[in-house]
Amino acid sequence: MEHRVSYKVYYEDTDSLGMVYHANYLKFMERGRTECLTATGKSVADWNRAGIAVVVYAMNIKFKKPGALGDTVDVVSTFRIDSEYRGTFRQLVERAGELLVSADVEVVCIDKDQKLCPMPEELKRLAGTG
Amino acid sequence: MEHRVSYKVYYEDTDSLGMVYHANYLKFMERGRTECLTATGKSVADWNRAGIAVVVYAMNIKFKKPGALGDTVDVVSTFRIDSEYRGTFRQLVERAGELLVSADVEVVCIDKDQKLCPMPEELKRLAGTG
Amino acid sequence: MEHRVSYKVYYEDTDSLGMVYHANYLKFMERGRTECLTATGKSVADWNRAGIAVVVYAMNIKFKKPGALGDTVDVVSTFRIDSEYRGTFRQLVERAGELLVSADVEVVCIDKDQKLCPMPEELKRLAGTG
Amino acid sequence: MEHRVSYKVYYEDTDSLGMVYHANYLKFMERGRTECLTATGKSVADWNRAGIAVVVYAMNIKFKKPGALGDTVDVVSTFRIDSEYRGTFRQLVERAGELLVSADVEVVCIDKDQKLCPMPEELKRLAGTG
Repeated sequence: MEHRVSYKVYYEDTDSLGMVYHANYLKFMERGRTECLTATGKSVADWNRAGIAVVVYAMNIKFKKPGALGDTVDVVSTFRIDSEYRGTFRQLVERAGELLVSADVEVVCIDKDQKLCPMPEELKRLAGTG
Repeated sequence: MEHRVSYKVYYEDTDSLGMVYHANYLKFMERGRTECLTATGKSVADWNRAGIAVVVYAMNIKFKKPGALGDTVDVVSTFRIDSEYRGTFRQLVERAGELLVSADVEVVCIDKDQKLCPMPEELKRLAGTG
Repeated sequence: MEHRVSYKVYYEDTDSLGMVYHANYLKFMERGRTECLTATGKSVADWNRAGIAVVVYAMNIKFKKPGALGDTVDVVSTFRIDSEYRGTFRQLVERAGELLVSADVEVVCIDKDQKLCPMPEELKRLAGTG
Repeated sequence: MEHRVSYKVYYEDTDSLGMVYHANYLKFMERGRTECLTATGKSVADWNRAGIAVVVYAMNIKFKKPGALGDTVDVVSTFRIDSEYRGTFRQLVERAGELLVSADVEVVCIDKDQKLCPMPEELKRLAGTG
């Protein structure tokens, strides 16, 4: 199931080349994952209180077109389970249907001691496999 | 006239003390000023294309209570003209009516050569004095 | 006693106006305070492990001249004790002796429960009053 | 040829999970590339003034271990030319020899009109092929 959320590009997101600073697209995508997770009925803060954090361990990202100040960008996210311990968000950053950035974001869940833990049921449901 | 806009607190906004990193409140306030200016009918990108930037030259800020991951904060802004060349945004960052941060943000307008220019009509109208 | 530390301005620090984004000067100043505190013989991470955080509760800042990509800026910090519970960093951001930004940064110490605690001896020594 | 530069982890780099926020490693790596390019004898600001920007178009990154407040991290960079128009930085972020993050960062050069331009001689020399 596809999750969509929109954000405005502010000065904080841009750099002196006049476009969005490349690392800041990762912030937009992390906001998208946060909202996607929250849509499971449990916010990221709830997850943390339950002693679980969903963290990125690998990312493959392509910067195709630059965003600019004042743009509204859509973050489109889908999630799949790769194994008992791993999942992947496929994320697109679009502007009015035009693709700016695409990424595969591989995540794991860790507990309070930073130990790997199995994908919880909510994430399996998010992937449509729970 | 009071302008209000809301934002979610994401991981990017927090630091290892577990709260919002102090400098990031300035980003929330800058977003609030951007939306406030856009409400004049001209976006900040439009202002830039017209050769004008509204820039901060002084700020007096009080950090009263800390925001945390997952909070929704409201940025409440009002604007007044101080002189031909200067204006002040009074800005509050609130969480469900509770004051987190307050600031007086003094701004000037500069042109493409970074020369001071008089407050444009739109800003006077925003202040209710145009 | 004056503490000095230098930083380079990178793309991450700038915005689409071509200069350093105003909120990012607060990061430079926070780095300066961090190094200043570390010079007491206890790093900020040490302070945190000891259950104490030095946090900003008010800031009065003037942005005089803009910094740009590739600049080296010096953060110059002095500290004074204001009361049993409060102290102020006076901080300047300079570029080759030219003042870009100045600020009074009022700080308090809080413990793990975010309760106010008295200024520790190290901070009094930093202020030259311990 | 391997280029090395070190940075301290400050509060700004961390998030409420108590570690370095994942997107901020990209800032450390961009600083590393900036210093690497500057070592060609031409700073990034010089490159910009000459109408050329070296921009990231793809990135493959692995987050292996988390950095924390107060850590000193080394950014280790090597560069290779992939074609007339493309090059790749291989970058490692290490802490006392321990690998935290590794990435392949694919870059192109663009001119003032954001048109692709061939890799300049300085970059070929940086790659040891000029």
